[in-house]
Amino acid sequence: MAEYQAPLRDIRFVMNEVFDAPSLWASLPKVAENVDPETADAILEEAGKIASSVLAPLNREGDEQGCQWHEGVVTAPEGFKEAYQTLVEGGWNGLGGNPEFGGMGMPKTLVAQFEEMMQGANMAFGLAPMLTAGACLALDAHGSQELKEKYLPNMYAGTWSGAMDLTEPHAGTDLGIIRTKAEPNDDGSYRITGTKIFITWGEHDMAENIIHLVLAKLPDAPKGPKGISLFLVPKFLVNEDGSLGERNRLSCGSIEKKMGIKGSATCVMNFDGAKGWLVGEENKGLAAMFTMMNYERLGVGIQGIGAAEASLQNARAYALDRLQSRAPSGAQQPDKVADPIIVHPDVRRMLLTMKSYVEGGRAFSTYVAQWLDISKYSDDDERRTYAEGMVALLTPVAKAFLTDRGLESCILGQQIFGGHGFIREWGQEQLVRDCRITQIYEGTNGIQALDLMGRKVVGSQGKLYELFAQDVTRFLEDNRDNEALRPFLEPLAAAVERLDDVTEHVLAQAAENPNAVGAASVDYLDLFGLTALGYMWARMVKAAAPKAEGDRSGFYSGKLKTARFYFERLLPKTVSLAESIRSGSEAMMALSAEEF
Amino acid sequence: MAEYQAPLRDIRFVMNEVFDAPSLWASLPKVAENVDPETADAILEEAGKIASSVLAPLNREGDEQGCQWHEGVVTAPEGFKEAYQTLVEGGWNGLGGNPEFGGMGMPKTLVAQFEEMMQGANMAFGLAPMLTAGACLALDAHGSQELKEKYLPNMYAGTWSGAMDLTEPHAGTDLGIIRTKAEPNDDGSYRITGTKIFITWGEHDMAENIIHLVLAKLPDAPKGPKGISLFLVPKFLVNEDGSLGERNRLSCGSIEKKMGIKGSATCVMNFDGAKGWLVGEENKGLAAMFTMMNYERLGVGIQGIGAAEASLQNARAYALDRLQSRAPSGAQQPDKVADPIIVHPDVRRMLLTMKSYVEGGRAFSTYVAQWLDISKYSDDDERRTYAEGMVALLTPVAKAFLTDRGLESCILGQQIFGGHGFIREWGQEQLVRDCRITQIYEGTNGIQALDLMGRKVVGSQGKLYELFAQDVTRFLEDNRDNEALRPFLEPLAAAVERLDDVTEHVLAQAAENPNAVGAASVDYLDLFGLTALGYMWARMVKAAAPKAEGDRSGFYSGKLKTARFYFERLLPKTVSLAESIRSGSEAMMALSAEEF
Repeated sequence: MAEYQAPLRDIRFVMNEVFDAPSLWASLPKVAENVDPETADAILEEAGKIASSVLAPLNREGDEQGCQWHEGVVTAPEGFKEAYQTLVEGGWNGLGGNPEFGGMGMPKTLVAQFEEMMQGANMAFGLAPMLTAGACLALDAHGSQELKEKYLPNMYAGTWSGAMDLTEPHAGTDLGIIRTKAEPNDDGSYRITGTKIFITWGEHDMAENIIHLVLAKLPDAPKGPKGISLFLVPKFLVNEDGSLGERNRLSCGSIEKKMGIKGSATCVMNFDGAKGWLVGEENKGLAAMFTMMNYERLGVGIQGIGAAEASLQNARAYALDRLQSRAPSGAQQPDKVADPIIVHPDVRRMLLTMKSYVEGGRAFSTYVAQWLDISKYSDDDERRTYAEGMVALLTPVAKAFLTDRGLESCILGQQIFGGHGFIREWGQEQLVRDCRITQIYEGTNGIQALDLMGRKVVGSQGKLYELFAQDVTRFLEDNRDNEALRPFLEPLAAAVERLDDVTEHVLAQAAENPNAVGAASVDYLDLFGLTALGYMWARMVKAAAPKAEGDRSGFYSGKLKTARFYFERLLPKTVSLAESIRSGSEAMMALSAEEF
Repeated sequence: MAEYQAPLRDIRFVMNEVFDAPSLWASLPKVAENVDPETADAILEEAGKIASSVLAPLNREGDEQGCQWHEGVVTAPEGFKEAYQTLVEGGWNGLGGNPEFGGMGMPKTLVAQFEEMMQGANMAFGLAPMLTAGACLALDAHGSQELKEKYLPNMYAGTWSGAMDLTEPHAGTDLGIIRTKAEPNDDGSYRITGTKIFITWGEHDMAENIIHLVLAKLPDAPKGPKGISLFLVPKFLVNEDGSLGERNRLSCGSIEKKMGIKGSATCVMNFDGAKGWLVGEENKGLAAMFTMMNYERLGVGIQGIGAAEASLQNARAYALDRLQSRAPSGAQQPDKVADPIIVHPDVRRMLLTMKSYVEGGRAFSTYVAQWLDISKYSDDDERRTYAEGMVALLTPVAKAFLTDRGLESCILGQQIFGGHGFIREWGQEQLVRDCRITQIYEGTNGIQALDLMGRKVVGSQGKLYELFAQDVTRFLEDNRDNEALRPFLEPLAAAVERLDDVTEHVLAQAAENPNAVGAASVDYLDLFGLTALGYMWARMVKAAAPKAEGDRSGFYSGKLKTARFYFERLLPKTVSLAESIRSGSEAMMALSAEEF
């Protein structure tokens, strides 16, 4: 099994050379006061070390051992607690947190890179800091000053972790029908009662306290999604002086046996009149949740890239090492018993598909992170509004497209290993099992597609879509005379035009047919993602081309060649997707239940 | 977790109504003497019972327990031994076997249906009879009369099972470099020495003896694939009177921990001067293996369908049962808290994609089985030759396309369950883990694609391809005036034309570029499979249309509507595949090792 290597060279290329993040940071005063290029680079370097030397070595054993539940107590796999402590000591949980409460205030363009390395090295572990960061975001955005002062510093420090308690046995996608109830106490707090499932790291032994953000219904709340409120419910109550008090009335009833991310605990949480505090306004809980959703969903997309990067590293090493058969054009290493399998076109096809998606995906997540930073930190209203629109539009694409391609890349990496990919010792099968959840949780990829097509594209009558189309068009125009980009501009323009046409088509359909959005949505998101990755590859070509000549490392020329592969072999998928979408909803709505 | 229901209605439709297997059997005297439609139907019925009430109930527990290895002894999961005994008592291991040695002589068109149900109910278990049947085929085709008389009756009975020992740690795809050696003894037997890995059910406690067919090299054998011979190596030596004698010098060194099919044992087999007997001619071992490969590879394709069918059954039941959100066109069950998720277009898209592949795949495997029967049993030389060509051409498509779509269907089924699909209790995640191996073993799907494009299509200068194209063209011509088929004939003709063009294109490329085949192969196989499934759906429409009117069950009208979905939503993928293939090999061959 290859050891995970933090892909720092690629990360720096995307962050600094493609997107010039340092200039972005300099343009955002609230960012500039916290970070400069040297600090950012030191953070990357250190994050890479933690990922490869602290987290990656625990990955397989974490999967083998899993978390253990015993009478409500959950024990993390061996070594996890110590690794968590390493993160606490380095302040990593608060990397992107609000400096007012002890966070480090780093921009998402940087934090995203840390996340990728952590998730690529050990996804099961990485979920703990990820959930904590999400809980902090919701709390920071919607909690009262009192709640923030009381909880955020310890959560940013990591001594307390966070959990998000949304799902119930009968309510997953449809949170409007949750039953957990919140009844007011006289002191302004609430009694929370109900059962939540699929609560990631809802209970464990790595932190001193666990802060649950719980969706529940107030008495006489309106039916449906507009009657949901958000509550902060700590595992241990916190005394006035900040010390831990008595145990709250909540407990972990069991943990799930599951396909992957076995090193993490997926908890059934029982709230039995637990004491909680309202976060944000009554009945506005879902909205509060959605604040942090854009971050979390991008984070899940990044998990897909992380797993895919690990898969690519392993598969590349194996393809260079494994001797089997001869190259079609004749023996390449005649002194050996066979040639390394990387000589075979089909093995190269698999590696290049992975490389296209991993590196294109990393660029795309950084691109989205850039809009997140602008939307959060810009002083310029117009620029901020534009960025907010981009974030709204691109987030579901990042979540779904990057995890779909993440799984595909993990499967391809496994395939390169042949039979060895199926057995545990090489680690490839774990990547597939772990990565699979990313397409499901934090809103299934089908839900992401509905969000993109329905709420975002149709909901804005195409206006949000136009923001993206404009950005690509501007790039095409600005680079009309770029020699290196010449082979890519025309097919990219054609892909965007195709996406334009399909968007317009579905907008028209949606006006008269309520099923039009759902019939188009998943294929539309795929079409969108493939087009966006074409744009990312064009931007990478632009950054790499001037440095490719005379580059002996192969780094820059590899980028140019991978871009060509992407445009020739993968971008054409958009043609079929467009055709499928145009067939509309009739065929799928025509069947009665019996006819299925 | 839904219980597996043997899909007898669908199987009968394909076998009897679409392909009219009874007429085929009647036309083949050697088949007709063993089977008639009533017998065949009774066999299906009984096979269905065994699948759903004996094998399926053991599936999850088999996965949880796995096989246990202790000092060379492998114990199958609880209940497997008794289930195996049920198969022995019913003579199921010899269903397709040669009647001269105690087999039942049933045609593949029937046996394939039994296989689908067995594999759909419990793939880990189903591998044992599958491997035995494969070993019997090789032995029957190439063994001496003496070997056949000594081993086949007990193997057909199932009291002895079979195993295929090909792979070695350093030699998987490239069997030419195996190291296991066979040295002649004075009595005509050989001493076999070496290590084999990934030997499915190579050791277990379900049968009295295990007959290994082992690839090994004779002293001074030519290098490479032309120096490989095949040997029969029993676990227990067999005395003159047929009773079991002493233990042979072979042992199971360990079993693999793996992603799925955990209920089966994947063995490391050590041969330490074990006594073996040559099967077929010296140095012709690979050819002998390939005799049974066509059967085994179709069998693996059928595993893909079996798993996908199980996934479809579960997902359909869940989609009808799970209440979540409202239909886009307004509440369908206003008295309930939400509508069943089958109202959503995207859930229907997933179910219909699965249904398209499962039912189209079943038709395709039966279509291939039909050619296998003709190639094996026809007295008409011309007909037999045609069928042999079709088998050679279609087998790699059946193996790879059906398992690729099998995994896709298992993943879609899991997706429909949302978070519940990821946890073990619903069984969906096991289907994904189990099905994944079908793309890898028995020649990876990449190797299947090379076999199709290289050996079969290019190797025959397109002649084998023409056989298939002719068959579709004949169908198109014969049904030119079929009203029900009208919407399908034109797109099917267009798809075949596209496949024609791409075939011609790659043939031309291959003449000058050794990498052309490998660059096109996987996409070509996919294009071929999608086109072939279009043909299958057209044939199903032809069979279903006359019965659809007034059919209250929805069975026939469901077929027509699914065909429409397939043609509108899935067949268009061929457009993009053709475009990708035409881009050739340059982009993927351009990178040096460093540039990856």
